[in-house]
Amino acid sequence: MNTAILPGSTLLAELRPEARNAPESGIVEVVNHGRLKPGLIPLWVGEGDLSTPSFIADAAARSLAAGETFYTWQRGIPELREALARYHQRLYGRAFSPESFYVTGSGMQSVQIAVRMIAGPGDEILIPTPAWPNFGAAVGVSGAATVCVPMDYTQGRFTLDLDRLAKAITPRTRGILVNSPSNPTGWTATKAEQEALLALSRKHGIWLVADEIYGRFVYDGSERASSFHDIMEAEDRVIFVQTFSKNWAMTGWRIGWIEVPVAFGQIVENLIQYSTSGSPVFVQRGAIAALDEGEGFVAEQIARAAEGRRIVFEGLKATNRVTLSAPVGAFYQFFSVDGREDSRKLALDLVDSANVGLAPGTAFGPGGETGLRLCFARNSADLVEAVARLQKALATL
Amino acid sequence: MNTAILPGSTLLAELRPEARNAPESGIVEVVNHGRLKPGLIPLWVGEGDLSTPSFIADAAARSLAAGETFYTWQRGIPELREALARYHQRLYGRAFSPESFYVTGSGMQSVQIAVRMIAGPGDEILIPTPAWPNFGAAVGVSGAATVCVPMDYTQGRFTLDLDRLAKAITPRTRGILVNSPSNPTGWTATKAEQEALLALSRKHGIWLVADEIYGRFVYDGSERASSFHDIMEAEDRVIFVQTFSKNWAMTGWRIGWIEVPVAFGQIVENLIQYSTSGSPVFVQRGAIAALDEGEGFVAEQIARAAEGRRIVFEGLKATNRVTLSAPVGAFYQFFSVDGREDSRKLALDLVDSANVGLAPGTAFGPGGETGLRLCFARNSADLVEAVARLQKALATL
Repeated sequence: MNTAILPGSTLLAELRPEARNAPESGIVEVVNHGRLKPGLIPLWVGEGDLSTPSFIADAAARSLAAGETFYTWQRGIPELREALARYHQRLYGRAFSPESFYVTGSGMQSVQIAVRMIAGPGDEILIPTPAWPNFGAAVGVSGAATVCVPMDYTQGRFTLDLDRLAKAITPRTRGILVNSPSNPTGWTATKAEQEALLALSRKHGIWLVADEIYGRFVYDGSERASSFHDIMEAEDRVIFVQTFSKNWAMTGWRIGWIEVPVAFGQIVENLIQYSTSGSPVFVQRGAIAALDEGEGFVAEQIARAAEGRRIVFEGLKATNRVTLSAPVGAFYQFFSVDGREDSRKLALDLVDSANVGLAPGTAFGPGGETGLRLCFARNSADLVEAVARLQKALATL
Repeated sequence: MNTAILPGSTLLAELRPEARNAPESGIVEVVNHGRLKPGLIPLWVGEGDLSTPSFIADAAARSLAAGETFYTWQRGIPELREALARYHQRLYGRAFSPESFYVTGSGMQSVQIAVRMIAGPGDEILIPTPAWPNFGAAVGVSGAATVCVPMDYTQGRFTLDLDRLAKAITPRTRGILVNSPSNPTGWTATKAEQEALLALSRKHGIWLVADEIYGRFVYDGSERASSFHDIMEAEDRVIFVQTFSKNWAMTGWRIGWIEVPVAFGQIVENLIQYSTSGSPVFVQRGAIAALDEGEGFVAEQIARAAEGRRIVFEGLKATNRVTLSAPVGAFYQFFSVDGREDSRKLALDLVDSANVGLAPGTAFGPGGETGLRLCFARNSADLVEAVARLQKALATL
């Protein structure tokens, strides 16, 4: 769109640079290129193909019908914060206080609040990349600077270079964003890596913003990925950002949570107050149902993703045109096509030639520019067809 | 709560000052004092006593049942943006483009995005006060400074002192927040006052953030209050922040909109992307029903508020203990009790002695510290009883 002729275009230059320079998502260009193509199989965003299960939707509908349509606690209703404490107790095997949990209007808002608490103009946040682009963008909007620390990418496998990360720490560094299991790479921190990151946090007095939202999606038979919850003390500088989107197929509900030291409660509540002023009660009722009754659905989602992972990994490997490794966690296959280094152009080409939508590695920052991200949280039939199309397209590209 | 002994309390000092210093709402102290009192009539928050009408709730429930639970347009679904354009066309009698409207997660988020676009560290925003405290708090969180410009308060009537406002403009000033009709004062800008404000905006190149969310609540028989929409040109520096909360009894839904020059679209979309990443489709379906089918309900709400205004104004006036004027717009009665200047203490006292919850003027910034705010968007029976209790209490205070 040519904005030069639109009403208000002469005023654009007056806006704050943090707002003006907030980048457009690098995935959106490809989505816009293929959005209207008939039959396209969309594997470009981080979302499955199942709608929210009815036991969750029904809980919200009952609340609406009961007239729960008024203002409520800014920090979330007590019943949901208690359900979060119960869920964490089951998952991590120790007691949690409801006072650690604050309901937000998405995992994204949790990231925004976390960044807002620890960083502003003059500060730096380290992000191992490739990474979800919204992390860096949220840092930019806050006025702080993102310092990308590329992961090591060898033979299609990403590893965290702890020395490189430690060397990137300066007196301006206020935190490290740790996304494990990782979107887009599937990298999943080992306990030893988490201990090393926690040691960096303690040594330098810097924060860990822990995004463990894919923590249930691991494929080695264990119940969950290793978590900072397993190794941290109450006084450690760890803020968890979380969402209901992935485990419970609630991407469209816009509800998440943030977990902080109990002493931070009033600050988080104020930041919620002055950004969205809380979440709808009826949406929170759905979230309670998800936590308390959702384990069967989560297990089904993980089994489905495991099958999707197998189909995609084996199918792409069979082309002999790609470099990849099976992801340890999350629900994305990251891969590079040999001889095709421009992932933006490649993603656009594959929309045209294969009618499959993938996200270009260029969207995720330094370290993965040559790769593509494929979301396999989808039914097997679609994935089998998508892989067949990609095999055919890659044979001629 | 004594935070000194809570986990993480030693880390509080490490947080950003903009986050740490975000104030707790001054209304909350009084609410917490009276929240659990049996029989208390709560007139302290800006919310009516009607739950959302069923034609709105049902539209949301149908969408949920149909599985509309996926990610959607960051700027809002096209159907809602078109409904907003239709609504504006009906109300203001001229054409509007859907491209002017962006769906947000509340009027509060609209304010946050507006502030984020125009102000940051080193900038100043002027706010005529008394004012809704969240305006100034949102400015503070952005790192900019709020400059309060007290309105003139004589014989219980507030007027905007345009000279004082003009004199408060400095080279750092980036905008003026104009809330008309005003919460908490009921002041409603005349067309001449709006023209003067627009002239200041043009002369100094500063923004008007227009909060006209109570624009339908006027009591002189006209359909709506005067609006900047009536006098502005496409190239003027006006951003409208809006909500579904008040007109359609949707406070708990957390949905609003922001109206900006069309050329700002991508910037607003990016700021939504990096704060909450959009609003639920099912909530947006409710909002469409509100706009397209809600005029009867809005009329009912306004008639109810008009009756509430009459009950409260006449009842309080009869005490001969108060100074007040009937509000021109919005649904609050602001009044001072003669001889009682400490409104914080008075509000706490009235919880105890009258079992009526009011908001203290101290919560709204300079200019109204001696007053109290009473929300009359409520059924007549409650208001008659509340006024009777206040009459009795004021006779002995």
